[in-house]
Amino acid sequence: MGTVTPADDLARRVAEHLLSREGTGPAWGIAIEEAREGYARISMTLRADMLNGHGIAHGGMIFALADTAFAYACNSRNVTAVAQAASIVFLASAKAGERLVAEAREQASSGRSAVYLVTVSTADGRKIAEFQGLSRSLNQPVLDPA
Amino acid sequence: MGTVTPADDLARRVAEHLLSREGTGPAWGIAIEEAREGYARISMTLRADMLNGHGIAHGGMIFALADTAFAYACNSRNVTAVAQAASIVFLASAKAGERLVAEAREQASSGRSAVYLVTVSTADGRKIAEFQGLSRSLNQPVLDPA
Amino acid sequence: MGTVTPADDLARRVAEHLLSREGTGPAWGIAIEEAREGYARISMTLRADMLNGHGIAHGGMIFALADTAFAYACNSRNVTAVAQAASIVFLASAKAGERLVAEAREQASSGRSAVYLVTVSTADGRKIAEFQGLSRSLNQPVLDPA
Amino acid sequence: MGTVTPADDLARRVAEHLLSREGTGPAWGIAIEEAREGYARISMTLRADMLNGHGIAHGGMIFALADTAFAYACNSRNVTAVAQAASIVFLASAKAGERLVAEAREQASSGRSAVYLVTVSTADGRKIAEFQGLSRSLNQPVLDPA
Repeated sequence: MGTVTPADDLARRVAEHLLSREGTGPAWGIAIEEAREGYARISMTLRADMLNGHGIAHGGMIFALADTAFAYACNSRNVTAVAQAASIVFLASAKAGERLVAEAREQASSGRSAVYLVTVSTADGRKIAEFQGLSRSLNQPVLDPA
Repeated sequence: MGTVTPADDLARRVAEHLLSREGTGPAWGIAIEEAREGYARISMTLRADMLNGHGIAHGGMIFALADTAFAYACNSRNVTAVAQAASIVFLASAKAGERLVAEAREQASSGRSAVYLVTVSTADGRKIAEFQGLSRSLNQPVLDPA
Repeated sequence: MGTVTPADDLARRVAEHLLSREGTGPAWGIAIEEAREGYARISMTLRADMLNGHGIAHGGMIFALADTAFAYACNSRNVTAVAQAASIVFLASAKAGERLVAEAREQASSGRSAVYLVTVSTADGRKIAEFQGLSRSLNQPVLDPA
Repeated sequence: MGTVTPADDLARRVAEHLLSREGTGPAWGIAIEEAREGYARISMTLRADMLNGHGIAHGGMIFALADTAFAYACNSRNVTAVAQAASIVFLASAKAGERLVAEAREQASSGRSAVYLVTVSTADGRKIAEFQGLSRSLNQPVLDPA
């Protein structure tokens, strides 16, 4: 699929670093599908411990998946960024065993603020939720210089 | 502490029922502190598997806790309600071992829609996040009639 | 620029109808740049009576412009839809005399709910705000049948 | 009605200053009902030029009213603050001639960020919308020192 730019390679290493350092991603079985500059696509299979009292994916887990993709994307330039605010719309339910994919992409940035959109879908393309997050970047790298 | 109204007693039973039926609450160690009509206060202790790559509470877990309190509160009249949309502002970080409290209260309702506010704080009162959720009620009870 | 489909022609007529019927669009000097199925792009020039106390575009007017584009887009299939909730992130300021463009596009839909994104920019491409809206459709047309 | 503290007096003067300086408030007929530290209550009567194509209050005007109350409240300590993000839920419609009241109150603050809630109601108490805004304070006063 063409060449990998240095910026995209850095984004991939940042995402892998974050996943290896965080408690949540491994606990939730997060897999990185693709990571590029300003972009991340990750996936997670819904387990019984991720369901609400109605037997469908808990909104908190859907948000958590989206927020994880957001984090990988907004840190992708190796500048630490934190979430300041986010909003989510829930569109459809998902059930145990389904694999959810969260795709995060940068929508806009201005100064230290940036806005990311994350779409959460099932593997067969059913849209589960739309997420919008506001990040603020700090003056520190994620990865130490080589 | 005064009398418990039938409405508050029902709210408590609904919250306990939801917690007993869902995969998430037990997995996260959720405890119900108080449940009343249109209100719920729950708590959770931050574990290593709830932290992000910066070693602090993952935004997804903070949202998940708030969303759980929201669910208990918006189902409290024994009418099933689902989350349609939510927004969250992150105010401060929290670290492993801290006990987070999420307090959900009804702000307004109109027809089948209702708005709830959830404040997430540490046990010593530091505000971690403010959450606002929109629910939509369905025509079905949570608990079967006795 | 190619053919206009019946769906796009209908969308254009709905947008023009709404603009002609509403008090706000004419009062704000709204112009429809383009209207298609699930899409609307409109513009407005910032006047002195649209500025806040700091002499820049009032956030309420930026939202109002975005919300207008959202309305045209989510009614574009000639099914009346109303806004249920919206969120906005403000990215940069704009000043008197600048022409703002709001571009609304459908992001996802499920049943009677749909999510639209609206980007507000200056004519020279500076991003001013990102808006996300949740609509709910009703069982009634906007335009009477011909 | 008790004493007015210096902080509340300052808040009142800031709100009046902002209203006198902005283009929007006078254009919309905004009246300040009450302004205190971290709090503002304002009102506006719905005119024909504030209605949408369905003949009810345009969501943009409802937001604009809420955003104005938010601005007065988050600048109330005479430290300039700007809106970074906001979300709104629309609960009921309002019609021409109705007087809308927006009441803004500080919900939480941390460092330079603060969260405000604004409730928009009719004069007879019908809730029209609930708004949540995130502000960021800058290092400059609103009013020049006396």
